[in-house]
Formats: sequence, structure tokens, C-alpha cells
Amino acid sequence: MLKIKKLSQPLNSPDHIVWYNSHVNRRERNILNQHASGVLWFTGLSAAGKSTIAHGVEKKIFSLGIRSYVLDGDNVRHGINSDLGFSREDRKENIRRIVEISKLLVDGGLIVLASFISPFKEDREYVRKCLSGDNFYEIYVKCSIQECQKRDPKGMYDKARKGIIKHYTGVSAPYEEPESPHLIIDTEKYDIADSIKLVLNYMDREGLLTLNKFYE
Amino acid sequence: MLKIKKLSQPLNSPDHIVWYNSHVNRRERNILNQHASGVLWFTGLSAAGKSTIAHGVEKKIFSLGIRSYVLDGDNVRHGINSDLGFSREDRKENIRRIVEISKLLVDGGLIVLASFISPFKEDREYVRKCLSGDNFYEIYVKCSIQECQKRDPKGMYDKARKGIIKHYTGVSAPYEEPESPHLIIDTEKYDIADSIKLVLNYMDREGLLTLNKFYE
Repeated sequence: MLKIKKLSQPLNSPDHIVWYNSHVNRRERNILNQHASGVLWFTGLSAAGKSTIAHGVEKKIFSLGIRSYVLDGDNVRHGINSDLGFSREDRKENIRRIVEISKLLVDGGLIVLASFISPFKEDREYVRKCLSGDNFYEIYVKCSIQECQKRDPKGMYDKARKGIIKHYTGVSAPYEEPESPHLIIDTEKYDIADSIKLVLNYMDREGLLTLNKFYE
Repeated sequence: MLKIKKLSQPLNSPDHIVWYNSHVNRRERNILNQHASGVLWFTGLSAAGKSTIAHGVEKKIFSLGIRSYVLDGDNVRHGINSDLGFSREDRKENIRRIVEISKLLVDGGLIVLASFISPFKEDREYVRKCLSGDNFYEIYVKCSIQECQKRDPKGMYDKARKGIIKHYTGVSAPYEEPESPHLIIDTEKYDIADSIKLVLNYMDREGLLTLNKFYE
């Protein structure tokens, strides 16, 4: 059962306002929002269900008054990283920028739901290291390549098999399985609704949906 | 007088939760937060007071329960744009990325307080065009180059005059004055406290501190 703990006094109360010289910080934003901020990093093959789960989690926690933001290919590759391709170097820069944006969003009080294939162990280790102070959790959305190819909602695997798309993860480029993710969601065992529940339960256990873990 | 208008029902009430297939959008986040999101873009010479005013505004509106985020050289040039220098091309890319980050933050429900010299008219026009759907306001923090050089809190003007720093705005690189900013704050006429008040009054008049303008 997910519960949002309320402070005894509303944040707008003057008693809570401390004026000093430093900037508004993350802790203060978390208290205003009444929830922690952090990063859930969803990794896995294309069509494994990463973005669907991330958006489902966002919808659910929003209904609990929790602020989050999904970062995925849609708003990153078409926005800030529109200048980047898929070479090894560009993939690294892609990840580096996503990490930096995540830091800003976490500092700004949001829970980042980052949904990226992020196939390379080296990149994921970089992410984990950079975000270690930011309530970072790696979630492996697990699904066999056979099943992903069967789902193939965008027809990308088909194009990759035909060689129309090159260096496609799982077909012509490697996906290095996470060795020690915080959570594994096997979407061949669980449907989307249950996968979302698993993430929510995990967030609840980790205290990400309240202020308990971090400030009390 | 700044007032935060409250909805008659709390957002956590099930009556407010509409489940459908699209993502959580900006409007919904604004309603949860009980305030609009948008961008105040502070432009002006180094030492004119941009960042001090931006942080002061943030502190003040935070005390009113309004979520904002300051983007400035500190968290951008040392973070996501740490790979960029000060060539014309890099300055353009710097601005492009800040615009894209601003879009994410506004979509995420925050008021962005962007504090950048942004000396070129062409760049500011690009910013204005890109953010035209995001409650964008250009604020010119005006101060004579003589006064900025006198203040010189980081000793940068001194170094620029000695040629140690090259292409420094106002000394060896141009600052193109804004022609039609939304607001001008002359920091030779107003001290910091009054400058902050001018911005707050402007935000209030524009309805940025409530939901009135945008959703009622």
C-alpha cells in the first residue's frame, strides 16, 4: 500500500521558510513536494517494455501527487541530442548529456524515469557512478530477443534483420546484460500492469515515494 | 500582493485523476503544482546582476510554494555544456542545449530562471522563437559597462582588459542590447531587493504565479 506522508505543517506556512544566502536546494524542494527525487534507469532491448512501463509508473505516481519526468528517445533524441548519431562516440555523448539532465531534474525535485536501451556495461557503470548521490536505481527490463523481435511494434527489428538499419541492438550490435541491477522486470513473465506494480512496490520499499528514507 | 489560488479539491482526490493513454502533460503538472510553468530569460552584461536576481526570485517564489529552477553558467557550463568553449559555434550550441533543457523543465512543471549573458540578438531571437509556446519572457538586466567593470566581483573584467581573457563581452566582444525585452531592470537605478520585487510584480501581473492566466 502506497502512502504519502504529510508534514504536520503546510509548506507555505511562514514557519518553514528559512532565509539564508545559499540557493534553494534539493532537500528543500523535496520537502515542498513531499516526496524524494531520484532516478530510475530502465535498460533493456528495444520492445522489452521500458518506455511503456516508465510512462505507466509516471501516470500512477502522478495520481499520488508525485512529480516525475520520463526521459526517453522521444524527447531526448529529437531535442537536446538531435545532433547526435549512433556511433560509439555519439552514444557516449548521448548518455553523458542524459546524466547531466537527470542531475538537474533530480536537483529540481523530480523523479527521473529514464528509458534508454543503454546496451553497454561501460556506459551504465558511468551512469551509476555519476548518479550515485541521486537516489539512483537501475532497472533491467528483461525480455528475450526472440520475443522482442516478435513484438517489434515499430518494425525496427524487421528492418535491422534486412540490413536496412545497421548496428541495431540485439541484431547487429550487442546488448550486454546488466550484472547487478537493482531490480529485474521480466516482461515475458509479467504483463505491463503487473510490471508497473512491481516497480511501484520497489519504489515504495525504497522509500522513494515519501520523505521517510531521506529526511526523517 | 502575490496570492496563490487554490483549487477547491485537492489534486490527490480520485475525482481529479483521469486515466487515458497519453502521457502526463504540462497542464496536469501545472494543476498539481498549482502554478504555471514558463521561462524568464535574464540577459545582460557580466556583473549586471542577472544570477543574483534570478536566485533571489527563486528564493522568494519558493517561499510561496512555486517551483522554479535557475539555469546559469554554474550548472550548465560545468555540467551538460562542459564540452563547449566560447567560439561563435560553441556559443550557439550552448544556447541550443539550454533551450532544449528549458523545454523539458517547463514541461516538467517548473519555472525556468535562465541567467545567461546571451549577448547576440540572433541567439536571443532563436531562444524566443523556440520557447514561444512556453510562457517565455525576456528580461534585460541593464547596467552600464563602466559600472559592471567597477563591480567586477570575479575580477574577470580586469583580466579581459589585460588581455588575459579574450573575447570577453563588453570589453573585447559585443553585447547587442535587446530591442524589445518584456521587462528591463536597471540595476544602476534599483538595488537587488527592489530588482527582485520588480520581477515578482511582473510575474504576478503576467499571471505566472497562479493558474489563472493559462487554465481558467
